[in-house]
Amino acid sequence: MNEVSIIPISGLPEVLEGDNLADLTHSVLKKSNRKIMDGDIFVVTQKIVSKSEGMSRDLDEYNFEDLLMSEVNRVIRKRGELVIAKTKHGFICANAGIDKSNVKKNTVLLLPEDPNKSAHSYRKKMENLTGKKIAVIVSDTFGRAWRKGQVNFAIGSSGINPITSYIGKTDTFENELNATEIAVVDEIASAAELVMEKTINVPIAIVRGVKYEDSKKNASELIREDEEDFFL
Amino acid sequence: MNEVSIIPISGLPEVLEGDNLADLTHSVLKKSNRKIMDGDIFVVTQKIVSKSEGMSRDLDEYNFEDLLMSEVNRVIRKRGELVIAKTKHGFICANAGIDKSNVKKNTVLLLPEDPNKSAHSYRKKMENLTGKKIAVIVSDTFGRAWRKGQVNFAIGSSGINPITSYIGKTDTFENELNATEIAVVDEIASAAELVMEKTINVPIAIVRGVKYEDSKKNASELIREDEEDFFL
Repeated sequence: MNEVSIIPISGLPEVLEGDNLADLTHSVLKKSNRKIMDGDIFVVTQKIVSKSEGMSRDLDEYNFEDLLMSEVNRVIRKRGELVIAKTKHGFICANAGIDKSNVKKNTVLLLPEDPNKSAHSYRKKMENLTGKKIAVIVSDTFGRAWRKGQVNFAIGSSGINPITSYIGKTDTFENELNATEIAVVDEIASAAELVMEKTINVPIAIVRGVKYEDSKKNASELIREDEEDFFL
Repeated sequence: MNEVSIIPISGLPEVLEGDNLADLTHSVLKKSNRKIMDGDIFVVTQKIVSKSEGMSRDLDEYNFEDLLMSEVNRVIRKRGELVIAKTKHGFICANAGIDKSNVKKNTVLLLPEDPNKSAHSYRKKMENLTGKKIAVIVSDTFGRAWRKGQVNFAIGSSGINPITSYIGKTDTFENELNATEIAVVDEIASAAELVMEKTINVPIAIVRGVKYEDSKKNASELIREDEEDFFL
């Protein structure tokens, strides 16, 4: 096994609606003479994806409760002001993933309409610009059941099999590994967060050196069907 | 921000009860001329910690159901053969974290009695051997509510604040970040898994370049109290 590197990309301008994120990233990388390699995985935060896609909403125009309900498929738990809901995308998270930080005062950001499509567009554009084969993950910071603290998860992906399966393979002692499926895109999103501190401007990281399988599957593979879930 | 590196450590011998893991790691690192640096974070899999601490159980001598119940604090869900339980340590996971893979046939591995203590001993010994200030995380692969696939989590830690809090800090737009606490030890454990493929022998990884806070707190900080949890 080789080392894996996590490379922070900073220096992007404030992202505005209509901006092409792959173009912006490519300019920044060119300026810093940063080379892209085949197999690089770009992890892009939901925040700049949502901004570029016009998902910002001014609370002078919109009522927060209405925005919340427009994003919600169903409410899972509610206590005081905290709503844990399944979004229309299928994510279970606080406030349906609506983001109040790092946006202008009195403004919120909704999740991208289709984060897998966002990841796919970014990948295609970046591959055209660089001539390299890459993968893309759109990440967001979610809380978890049972464990305190938030971690970065993959809400969209393109060009990488989201799950690495060891089912049917045998371990070092010839036992069959029959229950091991690693959510590798979530692990890569978490790894990327290590160089993306919340209060500073690192909205993109390149994860280099991970062996992964190219695939048409995307991060929606990680969403468990309601009827298979024990905790709804 | 600087790059983060994830360095796989392979070449350890099969770990036996009574082995000192820091000694074993140190020999392997010396042989490969690998330098340790201040601030390195060693992520060590539960599997070799449990083996060194004699947590292996022969199913010819022990009944699996009895072993399971000895590890369980309470059963959370049960469907067919799958038991999701809160262990005596406070982790919620399948089969109380009892591990059937990469152990001799008809043998299982229980979780370490006190993974924070295991992490602490490893750290102290490694710091003595190297003269460097390090942090240690004991990791295990857990399933999650709502999302398919497993990821690596921190079940024990030493020398690192398990949570990075941004509460009270302001974002780039001067909004107060009032709900952001990152479970950084879980993210580091997930990052380490990227170089620890299940079927090959990489039981340790060094994560280098993460800025972290030294702390007497350990991974038990991540366990949410039952009365604060919505999903029990």
